[in-house]
Amino acid sequence: VTSFAATSLSGLPEIRRGEDLAKLIVQALDADPSAKALSDEQILVIAHKVISKSEGAVVALDGVTPSPRALELAREQDKDPRAVQVVLDQSQEIVRAANGVLITRTHHGFVCANAGVDASNAAAGELILLPRDPDGSARSLRARLQKLTGCAPGVLISDSFGRAWRHGQCDVAIGCAGIAPLDDWRGRSDSSGRVLHATWLAVGDAIAGLADLARAKNSSEPVVLIDGLGRFVSEQDGPGAGALLRAPAEDLFL
Amino acid sequence: VTSFAATSLSGLPEIRRGEDLAKLIVQALDADPSAKALSDEQILVIAHKVISKSEGAVVALDGVTPSPRALELAREQDKDPRAVQVVLDQSQEIVRAANGVLITRTHHGFVCANAGVDASNAAAGELILLPRDPDGSARSLRARLQKLTGCAPGVLISDSFGRAWRHGQCDVAIGCAGIAPLDDWRGRSDSSGRVLHATWLAVGDAIAGLADLARAKNSSEPVVLIDGLGRFVSEQDGPGAGALLRAPAEDLFL
Repeated sequence: VTSFAATSLSGLPEIRRGEDLAKLIVQALDADPSAKALSDEQILVIAHKVISKSEGAVVALDGVTPSPRALELAREQDKDPRAVQVVLDQSQEIVRAANGVLITRTHHGFVCANAGVDASNAAAGELILLPRDPDGSARSLRARLQKLTGCAPGVLISDSFGRAWRHGQCDVAIGCAGIAPLDDWRGRSDSSGRVLHATWLAVGDAIAGLADLARAKNSSEPVVLIDGLGRFVSEQDGPGAGALLRAPAEDLFL
Repeated sequence: VTSFAATSLSGLPEIRRGEDLAKLIVQALDADPSAKALSDEQILVIAHKVISKSEGAVVALDGVTPSPRALELAREQDKDPRAVQVVLDQSQEIVRAANGVLITRTHHGFVCANAGVDASNAAAGELILLPRDPDGSARSLRARLQKLTGCAPGVLISDSFGRAWRHGQCDVAIGCAGIAPLDDWRGRSDSSGRVLHATWLAVGDAIAGLADLARAKNSSEPVVLIDGLGRFVSEQDGPGAGALLRAPAEDLFL
């Protein structure tokens, strides 16, 4: 029998640029009588928006001048040309532009709508970008948590991505530290001794997805603590969520 | 603060055709001292293979005669032509055939590798198919559980699907009853009062994905119980996991 539990963290204030997010998390944990103490076996999942806000990865639409390409795409897809320019600035390539949807490959390599640029939970007239280096952000936050508490839980940064073929969004891992993002069973055996050829679990994405169920979307609870998945936590920071990205040359849907 | 917990169910025997799966689950729950009693607030997630086995959705390779199309595809993709024939029999259309990978759209409408046909956890020389009507299977299992226990937990049937652009697999919902598969926040407001335009959570898939983390792949624990997500459970069986499928005409990656 295996078991785990996920709990949202309450009491975190609105995050502003330059703030010490690790310290605010530790303070919120200390102030929450129901929260367990941090441990090296835990996983902290953090919605990317608070990372982006603390890092200043925010753009004011007022200061954006759309290029001819942005103007054209905005007209075709019925969007704000300045917002389209911000999306283009975050992208290596446009994967699809149709039905009012702009799907791009970001400079990190993520394939998602609008390069992950988002107005929800942003201030008026502002857009929130993805963190520039989400794996680096996860490593920094983990190191800072360890400095403050002596514990190094696994840290995972999530965002909600749409999917090909299926409605709705699921949260996925865009950055992580101290977590094995993939659990490779290829070559190992199933319960009847048969070798598993394809079983390769996207643990990072499953963890991100479950954390989103431990909070309501409008609850202002960007941090979720998971107990019971310590088998995926490592002392080393590991490869990060970048390991979840399939190389474009191997991808059948680019 | 929101919180939930997921626990695998131990003690379920190997499932054979025609067996009363609901009864076996109830017996395993009764025999497990650590298991909570069933309730209308719980969600049971069941790996599709035990559903398929109980329904006889299994094919012996010996009895399969590959068509010319199957022989051609098998040669091109270096596969067993009989297995390719089984995949074609389960498919409406081939979406991609490349790099030794066969991605099809099944008769249900799922886009996945090999139409979900799988040799792992199967008997030698056999392949396990997806259940013919997974939403119907979920409804039947739920009704049978209610008859046996008086409780109607949410029931979700899962399978592991690969994804475009990202490595590894995540479990998704292929059938469900009594669970809202999608949680639509479009038109509702975020914590700062801004209307959310795109937020539409694939709850069914997130639940499937988290359940897979509550068991090891070789643990013979196909059933996972989730407590704390009762807000997604309804008395009505609801639309089922079919609601998660995007219509081909609206899809940008078919």
